[in-house]
Amino acid sequence: MPDKRTETDSLGQIEVPAEALYGAQTTRAVGNFPISGLRASVFLIRALAMVKLAAAAANRELGLITEEQGGVIVRAAQEVLDGKHHEHFVVDVFQAGAGVSLHMNTNEVLANRAGQLLGEALGSYKKVHPNDHVNYGQSTNDVFPTAMRLSALLALEELYPVLNALAGSFAAKAEEFRDVLKAGRTHMQDAVPITLGQEFAAYAAAVREAEAAIRRGSVGLRALGLGGSAVGTGLNTHPEYRQKAVAKLARIAGLELHPAYDLRYAMQSCACMAEVSGALRGLALEMVRISNDLRLLSSGPNTGFNEIHLPSLQPGSSIMPGKVNPVLAELTAMVGFQVVGNDAAVAMAVQAGQLELNVMMPAMAHNTLQSITILTNTLRELDVHCVRGITVNRERAAFYAGSTIALATALNPYIGYAKAAALVKESVASGRSIVELAREQKLLSEEQIAEILDPKNMTEPRARKA
Amino acid sequence: MPDKRTETDSLGQIEVPAEALYGAQTTRAVGNFPISGLRASVFLIRALAMVKLAAAAANRELGLITEEQGGVIVRAAQEVLDGKHHEHFVVDVFQAGAGVSLHMNTNEVLANRAGQLLGEALGSYKKVHPNDHVNYGQSTNDVFPTAMRLSALLALEELYPVLNALAGSFAAKAEEFRDVLKAGRTHMQDAVPITLGQEFAAYAAAVREAEAAIRRGSVGLRALGLGGSAVGTGLNTHPEYRQKAVAKLARIAGLELHPAYDLRYAMQSCACMAEVSGALRGLALEMVRISNDLRLLSSGPNTGFNEIHLPSLQPGSSIMPGKVNPVLAELTAMVGFQVVGNDAAVAMAVQAGQLELNVMMPAMAHNTLQSITILTNTLRELDVHCVRGITVNRERAAFYAGSTIALATALNPYIGYAKAAALVKESVASGRSIVELAREQKLLSEEQIAEILDPKNMTEPRARKA
Amino acid sequence: MPDKRTETDSLGQIEVPAEALYGAQTTRAVGNFPISGLRASVFLIRALAMVKLAAAAANRELGLITEEQGGVIVRAAQEVLDGKHHEHFVVDVFQAGAGVSLHMNTNEVLANRAGQLLGEALGSYKKVHPNDHVNYGQSTNDVFPTAMRLSALLALEELYPVLNALAGSFAAKAEEFRDVLKAGRTHMQDAVPITLGQEFAAYAAAVREAEAAIRRGSVGLRALGLGGSAVGTGLNTHPEYRQKAVAKLARIAGLELHPAYDLRYAMQSCACMAEVSGALRGLALEMVRISNDLRLLSSGPNTGFNEIHLPSLQPGSSIMPGKVNPVLAELTAMVGFQVVGNDAAVAMAVQAGQLELNVMMPAMAHNTLQSITILTNTLRELDVHCVRGITVNRERAAFYAGSTIALATALNPYIGYAKAAALVKESVASGRSIVELAREQKLLSEEQIAEILDPKNMTEPRARKA
Amino acid sequence: MPDKRTETDSLGQIEVPAEALYGAQTTRAVGNFPISGLRASVFLIRALAMVKLAAAAANRELGLITEEQGGVIVRAAQEVLDGKHHEHFVVDVFQAGAGVSLHMNTNEVLANRAGQLLGEALGSYKKVHPNDHVNYGQSTNDVFPTAMRLSALLALEELYPVLNALAGSFAAKAEEFRDVLKAGRTHMQDAVPITLGQEFAAYAAAVREAEAAIRRGSVGLRALGLGGSAVGTGLNTHPEYRQKAVAKLARIAGLELHPAYDLRYAMQSCACMAEVSGALRGLALEMVRISNDLRLLSSGPNTGFNEIHLPSLQPGSSIMPGKVNPVLAELTAMVGFQVVGNDAAVAMAVQAGQLELNVMMPAMAHNTLQSITILTNTLRELDVHCVRGITVNRERAAFYAGSTIALATALNPYIGYAKAAALVKESVASGRSIVELAREQKLLSEEQIAEILDPKNMTEPRARKA
Repeated sequence: MPDKRTETDSLGQIEVPAEALYGAQTTRAVGNFPISGLRASVFLIRALAMVKLAAAAANRELGLITEEQGGVIVRAAQEVLDGKHHEHFVVDVFQAGAGVSLHMNTNEVLANRAGQLLGEALGSYKKVHPNDHVNYGQSTNDVFPTAMRLSALLALEELYPVLNALAGSFAAKAEEFRDVLKAGRTHMQDAVPITLGQEFAAYAAAVREAEAAIRRGSVGLRALGLGGSAVGTGLNTHPEYRQKAVAKLARIAGLELHPAYDLRYAMQSCACMAEVSGALRGLALEMVRISNDLRLLSSGPNTGFNEIHLPSLQPGSSIMPGKVNPVLAELTAMVGFQVVGNDAAVAMAVQAGQLELNVMMPAMAHNTLQSITILTNTLRELDVHCVRGITVNRERAAFYAGSTIALATALNPYIGYAKAAALVKESVASGRSIVELAREQKLLSEEQIAEILDPKNMTEPRARKA
Repeated sequence: MPDKRTETDSLGQIEVPAEALYGAQTTRAVGNFPISGLRASVFLIRALAMVKLAAAAANRELGLITEEQGGVIVRAAQEVLDGKHHEHFVVDVFQAGAGVSLHMNTNEVLANRAGQLLGEALGSYKKVHPNDHVNYGQSTNDVFPTAMRLSALLALEELYPVLNALAGSFAAKAEEFRDVLKAGRTHMQDAVPITLGQEFAAYAAAVREAEAAIRRGSVGLRALGLGGSAVGTGLNTHPEYRQKAVAKLARIAGLELHPAYDLRYAMQSCACMAEVSGALRGLALEMVRISNDLRLLSSGPNTGFNEIHLPSLQPGSSIMPGKVNPVLAELTAMVGFQVVGNDAAVAMAVQAGQLELNVMMPAMAHNTLQSITILTNTLRELDVHCVRGITVNRERAAFYAGSTIALATALNPYIGYAKAAALVKESVASGRSIVELAREQKLLSEEQIAEILDPKNMTEPRARKA
Repeated sequence: MPDKRTETDSLGQIEVPAEALYGAQTTRAVGNFPISGLRASVFLIRALAMVKLAAAAANRELGLITEEQGGVIVRAAQEVLDGKHHEHFVVDVFQAGAGVSLHMNTNEVLANRAGQLLGEALGSYKKVHPNDHVNYGQSTNDVFPTAMRLSALLALEELYPVLNALAGSFAAKAEEFRDVLKAGRTHMQDAVPITLGQEFAAYAAAVREAEAAIRRGSVGLRALGLGGSAVGTGLNTHPEYRQKAVAKLARIAGLELHPAYDLRYAMQSCACMAEVSGALRGLALEMVRISNDLRLLSSGPNTGFNEIHLPSLQPGSSIMPGKVNPVLAELTAMVGFQVVGNDAAVAMAVQAGQLELNVMMPAMAHNTLQSITILTNTLRELDVHCVRGITVNRERAAFYAGSTIALATALNPYIGYAKAAALVKESVASGRSIVELAREQKLLSEEQIAEILDPKNMTEPRARKA
Repeated sequence: MPDKRTETDSLGQIEVPAEALYGAQTTRAVGNFPISGLRASVFLIRALAMVKLAAAAANRELGLITEEQGGVIVRAAQEVLDGKHHEHFVVDVFQAGAGVSLHMNTNEVLANRAGQLLGEALGSYKKVHPNDHVNYGQSTNDVFPTAMRLSALLALEELYPVLNALAGSFAAKAEEFRDVLKAGRTHMQDAVPITLGQEFAAYAAAVREAEAAIRRGSVGLRALGLGGSAVGTGLNTHPEYRQKAVAKLARIAGLELHPAYDLRYAMQSCACMAEVSGALRGLALEMVRISNDLRLLSSGPNTGFNEIHLPSLQPGSSIMPGKVNPVLAELTAMVGFQVVGNDAAVAMAVQAGQLELNVMMPAMAHNTLQSITILTNTLRELDVHCVRGITVNRERAAFYAGSTIALATALNPYIGYAKAAALVKESVASGRSIVELAREQKLLSEEQIAEILDPKNMTEPRARKA
């Protein structure tokens, strides 16, 4: 059996691998774009298949393609959704503007597979043609923007449960550490006490709020320009097609989706991609910050804060025995930086639209989907293998709570600002704690010390006269 | 009269300008930070004054400062809100971490002005002390994050009407140009027709959606950590203070504001600043894109598209007589780039929080407020002096509509894809329009040509059998 | 034969694929970091192998490992340099801080392969141990920074010939188009004439200057911290090791390399990575600009500038017959945006160093190497399949040269500024060219017109009295 | 005396402040661009004056303007260089594309001042006209790119001595702390010892290398396109003008400057601005990193590392007595972030060139000059008021040196890896130092301990058998 077959497109003949579900235009694109070796995200492949399925079903209902054609296109697309044929989506992520090449890759795979289901040879396209039937009434210019938005929404559905679990783990630690009094630190300097539980509750809040921001920031993705065809005017589409196709798409995807109110806007503008990418950046920035805190609090054991302990995951330095590094916290920061970088690329792409279309969409899709994927994977690992196993060094926390020079703040009402300030100076000079000095100098009774050191009194508002 | 007075703080004596409402700490900060020559945005000064007013009013009600103290602090703050004393806010925007210096500048100005109202000399602080009374139960760590968020909300209130007007102007042009048929362009190549009105309606939609995104992206700013005091635990505050103060603040500002549900989170995290900055970036990206379109469509007059005309605002080149440049469209792009840059600075600052506090707030405030201000001013000018005066070159638009090679797309149903493609080749080779050729070759009747060229048929979906 | 073998490290036993050249620590890392699916760049693998080869050879000479050990480590490393065993480098690009995991992956592959060469079973490590022998006197903290710098230099060696060829192609076109007079355009508005050759010569200059900037910006990469071991002090290394190892490395790599003058600096700071990444960004920005120009000049054919023609590479829109898009120019812009984004990620990583080490190196390496790779591949395609095939539409260029309203600038010396300005107004109103009008109004003799329209006179300085 | 005078330009009459040295076009620009309230940097004003001076001198020599005209233009420009008339440069930094407005502002100020010197009334322009004489043979398109490059070079001359001083201060501290043994820290975890002097020497190296990178990155600024006039062809310039003018400019500025070899490239491309901005970013990234280290090492006093002490500059928290914050280190990070953001804006602007010109120059100039200015001012303050006053907590450093678990690394050769690892475990569990335990368990003689703890042996390479 030959390993090549010959196909023809408007630029002439070309050899295609005999068993490939893709065809001439995909083959040209593979030749034209040997750039990164990276292929389309599974979320984008799924989204394209969903759009094609919805469009075929709508066009079949409207009598614009035959029942037979509609039926096999839907079956072929469903197979892709079932995880089949992904190896035939072979175009590089860096490719023709607007994603024409990946779109044609999709049309060709579905046309060939649909033809196969009808007993046709690969590359024949007689019963089901990639352009005339799979792509009926469609254009890259409405399909790709729609699939790009949908792919991000699909990917986000995988991120949300990870965020929920991570927030839950921080909250569980907040509960576990609720009575661990420690020193607060502001400007990296001794501040008044706080509980470790309060800190971890704030981390839980940060994750939940970042998720809320992503949900807000992805609202715009739900408005789809499918049906705009070549320039957003809907030329060559049926007046009912657009509503039908988007309704079907929503059902297939199991997501709330609706037609854009202005199809030209939906084609011209990719602002919604910058918005969701910006929201992902927000999550990344928070995770960089929190992972830095974890690295700081677990620094040591003997030359750092040594206030908390992160689970050991792999041997540290070959040269330094016993060293264990906060690898998942470090990973989180690196992935966070990548997301910031990806977001910068998305922003550049989004501003580069010209007139009816923004052809920089493949760059937006690649970066946004990579950001979601690496955040999902990283935060799942951080949750399961790091956060859940964090333990506290209670002795050290108590030592800090008792020795922070800002403890003097709580003494103000008892001994006055001036004496408090003097204690601070003495404490810094001698290295002894303020309470210890106050006790020694009999500035406070044991009852007063007990009241002051009651964590509840130090870590919550309290009614007191001026 | 001497031009200096002497004040004392915990680091010793220092000379202060005799008439300055600010005092020792501000003077130190002016000396410590001779960096950019830029002073705080008026929105930030107003927001700080509002916070101080609300706090004083709340503490007065709770009996934590006296009626007299509360009264004059409120009066002094109100004077600042009335536009007075701004010249006494003298600290550079690049200053001490967390904005301690601008915060103390505010405390000192209000204490001195309040003292003045009670007949005291500047710098005496006997009846009203910057720390003990103006700052009662407060800390830079809860005041500055609150004022930063509030200042952004206040500034946005100035942006929204400008966006509304700009969207309205684009919409009015859309109506004016609704019947101007022209060629669409995708990939900068001839595409199927569209109306200029459809394009301008999409610009209106872009502005409206960018505003919606900013409104979504500023939700997080409304949750305020005021009452958290030094580390978010509310140490040294009254249990009722926080609710009271924020309610008063909302009333003063005339905005929907509410206490943050987690005060540690509200102090640790500045994610809300990255979110709103990201949303402003979204507006900037859209305005870069649209202003580029305006420059493209108005390119010429003889060597470009020359499809629309922008109002002439100032003589162009001294060397080239008669040249007029699209200055406001160019300005818009430059300002858009600045907003993207400002946003990058904000993002860097937001990820740099450590433990209880993010001390990088002055950088966030400066960049976010500058972005809002320059967007507001630029888009107002763009609207009033450019968009409203745009006129169309109808003859040229009609020529493009008739000559775009993509017109062949609309001929497909009449003469078939093959003949259409042949016409395209001939048209490109000869430089003559497809319709002209079709007419000459008698491929279409005049009725058919009329039907095809009916703008409504070319720019809307139409029922047609497969 | 079993498909797993058991290995032991300091955290206990772990199952390793039986045929894997890697071992326990790599296996743990694969489990710990299922993040992106992306593996190390071939340039980084090669660089690590070179460092290991150089270190083993140096340590052998110094008698710190045996002749036998040194010999087989060198052979194993050479095999990797010959392109073998790359499939055993399996760690995700997002991994442990500082690249510990990829470094241990390298140590394990070389130890196992070296052992194999001595007849040992995989995983035995008796004759050649990954830590004790392959890694003798080394630490991730000096090896990874060295390999990262070296990998960038190796990758750049592939980029330079592509840039040279691209500049050559632009220069060849400059020669080809040297006599094509056209209108210049500034602010997208008619400006005075220029030749297309002058424009393409400037593109050639832009590529050459971008290369020069990359060469300047990679100077810092040549200073290597190898020999610093754990914290840059060289603990556990021989005083002669460092010079020897770097000299050997330079010889193996065929590059100019030298020991850093401060080993602590070379370990703490990754500024050299931000510098080279910034220089790559510079190339990207220029290519975005130039590719935008190509898209603009080739816009049309009937509704745009239509001044040049780019080769057709693949069919354009399925819905619009005959449409061909500037796909490689679009690709270039997308890749340029990616490089800008990658650079932002590098910058974030570079500022995140802490004390003795910057653990964010894997993110820097990944982004920098990807930038070089995609620029190399894209610009090669742009050169070969686009720039070399560009043709000019001479008729259109001549039309623009004759009709630009800025032509009036050249008439100033003959008819005065006032008459020139009047001609501009009439030309814009009537759509007729300035020269045509001047001829009609007999403002210029035919001789004068000939002199003015002489391309040489319009596109070069000319002595003339004030 | 009236406070307005009337001037006329090609758009008609306009009222100008009676005493203003600027004229009609500047007045229009002030009205057109009420954007930020920021005016041109003094470096840009100086650079523009130098260019005008050089051009006038050259044109006078070439007989293209009169001796009298040339003489007074040179005098007027020299006055601006002497610091006069800066208040008449009133155009907003965000203005017309390409800086036309600031350029015309310069032409008008010089023409009016030159006229004044000849006894003419402001606004008469009879003897010296802004366009015909001050701007003879020039265009914004060659003047502004030239002045922008020159302004950056002038500003850098102020930065270099600050960098030199800062590096010197770090080096002096390195000498002062050369014998302070402390624990190294990698991954924020205990690592092998290092001296504080070694760390500070590395900071000195970082500053010196960043300066070297800026010098490398500003090479491109020295190639000037002056003489290209409107589109880089030199239309309307004398063949000798370009060389003469640039030679004069170099002499006036006291800098090495030369004519660009391709004037079209020098006008089209602003890559040199992205390059220098990127190099400034490099400095910023290093200073963020180093200032973070200073904040980390000085954290405490009782709840942090407390290894070094930074000078106290201003009282810290009003609520927490005795608190002093690392304000200049924090400032440095904020300014560093700003420079990163400014650089992003520059990059956006640089890629946005179109055909003969990049009109986004005002944004590049503003951001680059602001970056240089705030870096200069911040690093001078950091040097003088922070770095020079840093002291070490020797006791704490010694404690860390003795307790880091990585000390075990140095024990390897004496007691073997296994025993060393066991000591680490016991040390971590008990909180006692490894040396203390080794001594107690008589694993090492006092002589051995002395040898191991000899700082020289721990912080330098040492010959030892395998």
